[in-house]
Amino acid sequence: MGVVTRLKCAKCGAVYKGDDYLICPKCGLEGIFEVEYDYDLMRDSLRKNPLRRRDRDDIFRYVDMLPVAGPPPAMLRVGWTPLYRFERLNRTLGHKHVYIKDDTVNPSASLKDRASAVGITMALERRCPAVACASTGNAASSLAVLAASAEMESYIFVPKTIPMPKLYQIAACATRVFKVDGTYETAFEVATDAIERWGWYNRNSAVNPYLTEGKKTCSLEIYEQLGYNVPDVVVVSVGDGCIISGQWKAFKDLHLAGETDRLPRMLGVQAAGCKPIVDAFEGSCDVCAVEADTIADSIRVGEPRNWRKALKALVESGGTALSVTDDEIVEAMLLLGSTTGVFAEPAGATGLAGLRAALREGLIDKDETVAVLVTGSGLKDPASLDGHIEVAEVGRDLDSVAMVLEGGGD
Amino acid sequence: MGVVTRLKCAKCGAVYKGDDYLICPKCGLEGIFEVEYDYDLMRDSLRKNPLRRRDRDDIFRYVDMLPVAGPPPAMLRVGWTPLYRFERLNRTLGHKHVYIKDDTVNPSASLKDRASAVGITMALERRCPAVACASTGNAASSLAVLAASAEMESYIFVPKTIPMPKLYQIAACATRVFKVDGTYETAFEVATDAIERWGWYNRNSAVNPYLTEGKKTCSLEIYEQLGYNVPDVVVVSVGDGCIISGQWKAFKDLHLAGETDRLPRMLGVQAAGCKPIVDAFEGSCDVCAVEADTIADSIRVGEPRNWRKALKALVESGGTALSVTDDEIVEAMLLLGSTTGVFAEPAGATGLAGLRAALREGLIDKDETVAVLVTGSGLKDPASLDGHIEVAEVGRDLDSVAMVLEGGGD
Repeated sequence: MGVVTRLKCAKCGAVYKGDDYLICPKCGLEGIFEVEYDYDLMRDSLRKNPLRRRDRDDIFRYVDMLPVAGPPPAMLRVGWTPLYRFERLNRTLGHKHVYIKDDTVNPSASLKDRASAVGITMALERRCPAVACASTGNAASSLAVLAASAEMESYIFVPKTIPMPKLYQIAACATRVFKVDGTYETAFEVATDAIERWGWYNRNSAVNPYLTEGKKTCSLEIYEQLGYNVPDVVVVSVGDGCIISGQWKAFKDLHLAGETDRLPRMLGVQAAGCKPIVDAFEGSCDVCAVEADTIADSIRVGEPRNWRKALKALVESGGTALSVTDDEIVEAMLLLGSTTGVFAEPAGATGLAGLRAALREGLIDKDETVAVLVTGSGLKDPASLDGHIEVAEVGRDLDSVAMVLEGGGD
Repeated sequence: MGVVTRLKCAKCGAVYKGDDYLICPKCGLEGIFEVEYDYDLMRDSLRKNPLRRRDRDDIFRYVDMLPVAGPPPAMLRVGWTPLYRFERLNRTLGHKHVYIKDDTVNPSASLKDRASAVGITMALERRCPAVACASTGNAASSLAVLAASAEMESYIFVPKTIPMPKLYQIAACATRVFKVDGTYETAFEVATDAIERWGWYNRNSAVNPYLTEGKKTCSLEIYEQLGYNVPDVVVVSVGDGCIISGQWKAFKDLHLAGETDRLPRMLGVQAAGCKPIVDAFEGSCDVCAVEADTIADSIRVGEPRNWRKALKALVESGGTALSVTDDEIVEAMLLLGSTTGVFAEPAGATGLAGLRAALREGLIDKDETVAVLVTGSGLKDPASLDGHIEVAEVGRDLDSVAMVLEGGGD
């Protein structure tokens, strides 16, 4: 296990020992913690049991870098997802060294499984009877799915706007799902109150700092899959800010544990209709809440809670943030699908859309290695492609097929 | 590579050398072939390079048991999906030794990826310019997804009734998708004509005998994952009959190659509203076409084409066939989700529904090991749960949450 030595508030910098706090007592919900380990111990552990000799094929191959005592007794297999280099995609992008990290093949079909797996394991170790969260989708379905596999109760709070496939997946697996009459914010408030009243384990990313530790496993894998090399650039779509800070944490931890002396630049990508973190990065200021308007449901977060850690990842890494339009996101979904077969939801392809913009703007040198995270499956929100797909309607005769093939009609 | 020595017609028994036929010249579409290998060579290969020493984590770890020369230059990772034993599920079933093979985490989210991966590899090796098929869903999305990853063109023919998530996934990845004005049968006819006219590689399971070879990798994995043991019973949902014959072929090949001397019993499960193979098995007669009526879209096949091989698997293995109602299928989807987190489409949970029936009927001894295939993800057809899921609608106050928790209301 990784030994957590202290928690450091991302807002006020105050430091707390041990691992029993969730949020900074001084700063409240704004005081999200950074988890720090005994890095001498971690270094020792990595020396005695090098990453390249491990054979476990899920996130618990990194148990000595996570805030858990060990793998849970039962859980669906999370992580160790493929990292691909697709020649055709790279020819289209005009960049040879792009790698796609396909997190759509996690058990609930999103990267959030990495966070939920750690949260549930911690809850089990603390003998909590149940886990709970509020979410617009992926975090919730991930929690419901993995809790079911770990024989733990789960209580899920969702807003009315949740896409149907995600709701049904949650309902099939959760102990109870509550559709709250209101927005995500309302669902979050009800969940927070209920968690306090019934003593459930809190798996709200906005609150629980250990979830980021789960998310970091994605970049630990990228490091291994690149042959124990750190990529030059890591591209991540940004909503609440938790995923990008998790990826940055991975490389910082590898660095602190003496595994590597290199660090990547982080490229954060938001939707043009919801880019509070891009604005704050560009203005070097705090984040202001915005009205969110984008098809990318999973990053449609007008009031991001983890923005401090996200900004820190961008600034510390010498990276940058940019935004892409919904049209560019849809184009990226179709480009990814047609050149690689990876079918992403809008937020899952937003990183790729951002990479195209970054390449156009000359932000990446031609020899640099780039890892792009695909964070969730298109099957979770297929309706986002309404009006954008081409289906040729044909009759029984081959003539209508020939017309389509020869470009004569659709 | 596995060396194919001959093809044997499942109808007339005629034998052909080489591997260039798709269907029996004498029997036409009814003459689906069984693929036979040089089993001395396979035995040699397994001795020199034992399964337990292989480290490739996709279906091409079995390249010497497949009709391909080697792994394709590029393709999404297919297979090596998890095999789970869930204590809670097994307590509910009242049977200790049930294992769930979770094929929902394949790249296109179904077992069909195993077949498409082999089909596409064969097409590449024969320098075919493109692949094509007609399908109601999973085979088509699998072909579109994997062809895109292999840089191969794909032409997909679907009937009007295809579920939306599957259609969108196909449209995002295929070169061209044709929605045919008619039923699956019509789409199949148009596809067959188009394949002949444009010289595409034919990935219709009903026609191409090599696809079954891809499907068999699922049971090769089960054998390895059970610690190099053959389960007593393998439970499979049955539509066209290709998957169950592929599983049976796996164990027969392992047997012929001297890897094991045991064989399992096959348990085939159909939906009560579409059970032509169950009827034929019970009546010891040929299959008669039926009007299909079931929510289990992927096994809604009123005129199964591979029924001879399916019946053979049932009879040769000393197994049996039974049917379950749509209500039992939905119950199995919810049981699987709530006790394991595996979210299956109706056809994906039909095997489990059948196992419950078989246990009730005393068809399985209490010490027998049972492997149940979950063939496709619930995200591909979530609407099948319409009217069956429980979502509690609550307001801002905790009282409404408490009411639900304490059973006072929904």
